Amino acid sequence: MCKCADYTIHSAHCHHGWDHSIPPALTVAPGTTIEFECVDSAAGQFNANSTVADVTALDFSKINPVSGPVFIDGAEPGDAVKITIEGFKPSGFGWTANIPGFGLLADQFEDPALHIWKYDPDTLAPSLFSKYGKVPLKPFAGTIGLALAEPGLHSVVPPRRVGGNLDIRDLAAGTTLYLPVEVAGGLFSIGDTHAAQGDGEVCGTAIESPMNATVTLDLVKNAQLESPHFTTPGPVTSHLDSKGYECTTGIGSDLMTGARDAVRRMVDWLCKTQGMSAVDAYMLCSVCGDLRISEIVDQPNWVVSFYFPRIVFD
Amino acid sequence: MCKCADYTIHSAHCHHGWDHSIPPALTVAPGTTIEFECVDSAAGQFNANSTVADVTALDFSKINPVSGPVFIDGAEPGDAVKITIEGFKPSGFGWTANIPGFGLLADQFEDPALHIWKYDPDTLAPSLFSKYGKVPLKPFAGTIGLALAEPGLHSVVPPRRVGGNLDIRDLAAGTTLYLPVEVAGGLFSIGDTHAAQGDGEVCGTAIESPMNATVTLDLVKNAQLESPHFTTPGPVTSHLDSKGYECTTGIGSDLMTGARDAVRRMVDWLCKTQGMSAVDAYMLCSVCGDLRISEIVDQPNWVVSFYFPRIVFD
Repeated sequence: MCKCADYTIHSAHCHHGWDHSIPPALTVAPGTTIEFECVDSAAGQFNANSTVADVTALDFSKINPVSGPVFIDGAEPGDAVKITIEGFKPSGFGWTANIPGFGLLADQFEDPALHIWKYDPDTLAPSLFSKYGKVPLKPFAGTIGLALAEPGLHSVVPPRRVGGNLDIRDLAAGTTLYLPVEVAGGLFSIGDTHAAQGDGEVCGTAIESPMNATVTLDLVKNAQLESPHFTTPGPVTSHLDSKGYECTTGIGSDLMTGARDAVRRMVDWLCKTQGMSAVDAYMLCSVCGDLRISEIVDQPNWVVSFYFPRIVFD
Repeated sequence: MCKCADYTIHSAHCHHGWDHSIPPALTVAPGTTIEFECVDSAAGQFNANSTVADVTALDFSKINPVSGPVFIDGAEPGDAVKITIEGFKPSGFGWTANIPGFGLLADQFEDPALHIWKYDPDTLAPSLFSKYGKVPLKPFAGTIGLALAEPGLHSVVPPRRVGGNLDIRDLAAGTTLYLPVEVAGGLFSIGDTHAAQGDGEVCGTAIESPMNATVTLDLVKNAQLESPHFTTPGPVTSHLDSKGYECTTGIGSDLMTGARDAVRRMVDWLCKTQGMSAVDAYMLCSVCGDLRISEIVDQPNWVVSFYFPRIVFD
């Protein structure tokens, strides 16, 4: 953690879904640094002793609470909020689940599954995935956003032009994120913290992990930003890439089908070469494998590739 | 170049499109190393003095020749050809064009454009893009494939399950690629060599550059591979990522629209911050920026991000 916070937003100050009528938990001047206590995306419904039965029993009305909102003085529609992600205080506990009906291959993985992670919150050493390998960690906030102009309550699940459940794994310490303001004060909230995730979050969950997140909120007047924009301070895959990647492909005229094919083929490859079950392979892909669009111009067929980091098995 | 070739396929041994009735230029035993002379994807229609008028005058019947085919003894349908990419001898000359009707934003970039590159083929030092910046180089073969089972001539433009115009920028020196065999001998060809390209090849061309490619062709019997699979020996972006990335996003229910939005926003950002023309920004995005799928599970909105490496302007 590289900067002391001026304020703390405790986890009791959370809300479910986005609604610009939710009263601010705090009003701050631009330039203020705030530490947010973030519960995990299941709002504490899992613990170190949880089993797959707890996935079936999940209360979805409690899913993905975000801490906030924070009203930023002077923020008006047309401005951007500049969010400097100062750092995280991870908890050391995490979970990854296959939740029926949710995830890129939901039609192929209909049964619930759960993996409980334990990691060292100080060293962030790669975390054991059963007997199969170790997953490098890079904490970030999956959900980070502002309130929408449209009145009423909006589900927290889909990300939107003002951010929200972006699940961009590079929104990690040191990254600066810009979000477009649509209501007075912006109304910033954050949550859904992850200890690790690959590009795509293919099974629908990451290493879901409660942790504190410290950010500095600033303002860019009249930025006229259309969509989230972010800047990373350095490499984004150096924790993953030193041993190279095993890569599968999906080729065809539809990017979604290509992505599904590439992930399905990686699941098959992991089962065949590592002897793991398909659902374990699927969850492992979600926490450390990356979906990339290799080419999108050679009509009528595009190539989506799925990159799995070999360091996991090193 | 780390391995001496047993044979050379000269550039006169090229073909346009895939057709399993094209006679082999060479028949080899598994384990043979071959150097291929590859012309560029315009088959020599551009040179150091070319202008934008030469884009308009392009003869498309000559586009994207591949050198080969090579018949691999013992290769049968159901096997995979294992291709070890030994290395490249780059030429030092390259071109990038906006070709009307081709590219991710073809509707927004209707006029032809051309950029001629000159680079040091020995040092492969980052290559100047006018006054704007320097692009790190990583040579690879854009088109690398086997013949299709279906008889007749098939356009070289789309990649398919047997490979072809994959434009996967990590098919570089040291990578091993596996392709499914559909006809006796496999019938391997290679071409469309690039000095650099980002994931997506968004404007439709990379740094198109003639160069020799050396590969070792081997066989995996009864691999029952569905689609190309490759293994990289180490990091794939370490030439690009040391200064971090500037990233735009496209958020919505369609991945193609998301990709288009993310690239359009990066073009706008480059124009605004670097003072370059939109078409220059578009071509620059194509040679060094990466399309990634950040999340594909938060229904109904997916996030496609475009990562532009800041080292270009450092």
